Amino acid sequence: MNHPDPVQPFHAISISRLARDLEGQGRSIIHMEFGQPSTGAPAAAIARVQAVLTSDPGSYWESDALKARIAKLYQDRHGLGINPERIILSCGASPALVMALTAAFRPGDVIAMARPGYVAYRNNVLALSMVPLEIACGPESRYQLTAAHLAALDPAPAGVIIASPANPTGTVIARDELAAIAAVCATRGIRIISDEIYHGLSFVGPVASALEFAPNALVVNSFSKYFSMVGWRLGWLVAPDDLLGAARARMGNLFLTAPSLSQHAGLVAMDCVDELEAHIARYARNRDLMLAALPAMGLTQIAPPDGAFYIWADVRHLTDDVMDFARQLLLDTGVATAPGIDFDPVDGGHFLRFSFAVDTPLVEDAIARMIPWFQARNRRPA
Amino acid sequence: MNHPDPVQPFHAISISRLARDLEGQGRSIIHMEFGQPSTGAPAAAIARVQAVLTSDPGSYWESDALKARIAKLYQDRHGLGINPERIILSCGASPALVMALTAAFRPGDVIAMARPGYVAYRNNVLALSMVPLEIACGPESRYQLTAAHLAALDPAPAGVIIASPANPTGTVIARDELAAIAAVCATRGIRIISDEIYHGLSFVGPVASALEFAPNALVVNSFSKYFSMVGWRLGWLVAPDDLLGAARARMGNLFLTAPSLSQHAGLVAMDCVDELEAHIARYARNRDLMLAALPAMGLTQIAPPDGAFYIWADVRHLTDDVMDFARQLLLDTGVATAPGIDFDPVDGGHFLRFSFAVDTPLVEDAIARMIPWFQARNRRPA
Repeated sequence: MNHPDPVQPFHAISISRLARDLEGQGRSIIHMEFGQPSTGAPAAAIARVQAVLTSDPGSYWESDALKARIAKLYQDRHGLGINPERIILSCGASPALVMALTAAFRPGDVIAMARPGYVAYRNNVLALSMVPLEIACGPESRYQLTAAHLAALDPAPAGVIIASPANPTGTVIARDELAAIAAVCATRGIRIISDEIYHGLSFVGPVASALEFAPNALVVNSFSKYFSMVGWRLGWLVAPDDLLGAARARMGNLFLTAPSLSQHAGLVAMDCVDELEAHIARYARNRDLMLAALPAMGLTQIAPPDGAFYIWADVRHLTDDVMDFARQLLLDTGVATAPGIDFDPVDGGHFLRFSFAVDTPLVEDAIARMIPWFQARNRRPA
Repeated sequence: MNHPDPVQPFHAISISRLARDLEGQGRSIIHMEFGQPSTGAPAAAIARVQAVLTSDPGSYWESDALKARIAKLYQDRHGLGINPERIILSCGASPALVMALTAAFRPGDVIAMARPGYVAYRNNVLALSMVPLEIACGPESRYQLTAAHLAALDPAPAGVIIASPANPTGTVIARDELAAIAAVCATRGIRIISDEIYHGLSFVGPVASALEFAPNALVVNSFSKYFSMVGWRLGWLVAPDDLLGAARARMGNLFLTAPSLSQHAGLVAMDCVDELEAHIARYARNRDLMLAALPAMGLTQIAPPDGAFYIWADVRHLTDDVMDFARQLLLDTGVATAPGIDFDPVDGGHFLRFSFAVDTPLVEDAIARMIPWFQARNRRPA
């Protein structure tokens, strides 16, 4: 390549690597750096895999039963009747996003997104030679894109990626605002990609789907968060009718099929409500613990943690170099976190993301370790 | 989208769908339409999954042991010392190809490839807004690209995709020719992507890797063919040093990680030599049966089936519309095949691909059904 690669690595990975090195040296590490449940798949899903392991032919396969069950999720959660044929199973939400981007857009197309936002939005748009248009979103809009943002863009972008609840902030786009965003996009011809991977993980009541207001949106989702099946690499895209053929052609060429064992497991996991809701109750408890502890850590500027399992905390009074800050926090306390620069290339050097999708005793332990460390920092001149 | 989508669906899928409909009606169907082993993963690999199912944390994971074991494969097969860090695990060969293309090339770049060739080469290049340059390869070059082809292109393309053994033909690029291709590409600055997914499946002795002659090639491989693990969605890319950062950044953003259970299974599968070699012996027997039967079917023009598990047969004396031909063959005999138009948009209407990766009795049954059908067709005026 003649030019520097525009696609950036994920900086949290180097924090994680350091954390594993320290673990290798016998240190006690608490992993709050990645957005992954520490729990495995629901027990019944694992039992199902155990049962089919020797009988599943392991061929290229797309489970009609799973597609129908996912369609039912939209009925149950949103009152939407979605034709199961519009659901394309994928190896996680990441390739579903690639499918959505390549089906709907072309190189050079401008794709708007909130800053801060999930690192892969910007990077995937860049990797596909599209143009990310990052819109600075701060506390005044709960770190989220608004209809007003999208109405003000001149010219209108080809597309927009929205996420609610969002990564890294956990904020939710309110129902009315989502309807207004959909209306602006419909008027201005802006195609919506809605990343709904954190649906089911809300502490403020039901979260609306973009499909309720924008029937031609592309919706990405996955079994990695609510269903606690990160390593199974199973996700899906809901494609609109006008892009269904294009999306299917991309799945069949770029990716082929989703893992067959994961499809068996996913179908069963969707009915494991008690076990999954127990995870949510634990996240809620962890969130309460974090919210109670943050003032003692001197962290008073945080995004409203409506959903997901993140705290997005402003640490600008403590550091100008969050990568160094996160590394020092890890070395001193054993608590691994994600530096904000992954999610916001402009202002992210002043933010830290904590993921609380771990066991509650670990959250308690992390808090006990972090309070004195932060208090010592707060006492120093910045 | 304003223009017709350049990415085409895989036509064999509609043959397969018809085959399944017929099965649903109680018809006996023999599936020779897809390039997938009818066998599952090796027994020891399945046993390993059974053992780790309840203990694996199911998180984002990249198995260092598997990367080291794959590196050893290059030592064992090719005498090459590959740093395991150059191996990037992926959800099958398909995303590995996407990773390779986006790491090495940009929209508008011209990528040369043989025609006929695997449908996804052309389609993925198109989906990523690169420009496929299909080079007609016939019997005179064993349906393969040659160094002479690449030397004659003016201007030189940015890249070339080679495959040996190839899909749909099964032909192998001879060792000397591969060295000559690498030399031309080095001189002309053409980056090689080598799809080595059919390595291990050769009926003509060892097959060379592009890495033996082109250290800066990107090599794609997978557990789907030799290791008989199609539905596990596990593959890898060997990236050259100068593109390793770019390739890793794409894996981390576009795809994240490979399925964790599949990584456990894959590591064990690589040592299941006896079971895997028994599959190869069966393919060899199936190939012999097909080669013995083809003359009776009037199919005398075929590509040299050096490897993989395909017969690429010229049926132009029998039809001008191979899609209709394949459908009729399926309806009349229950044998599902792949129409050549998937692999060659220009001349593929005159070719049929048979996959013989099925049980030997099914090959015998298919032959018994097809001989009278083809004989009746051969007696008719075309």
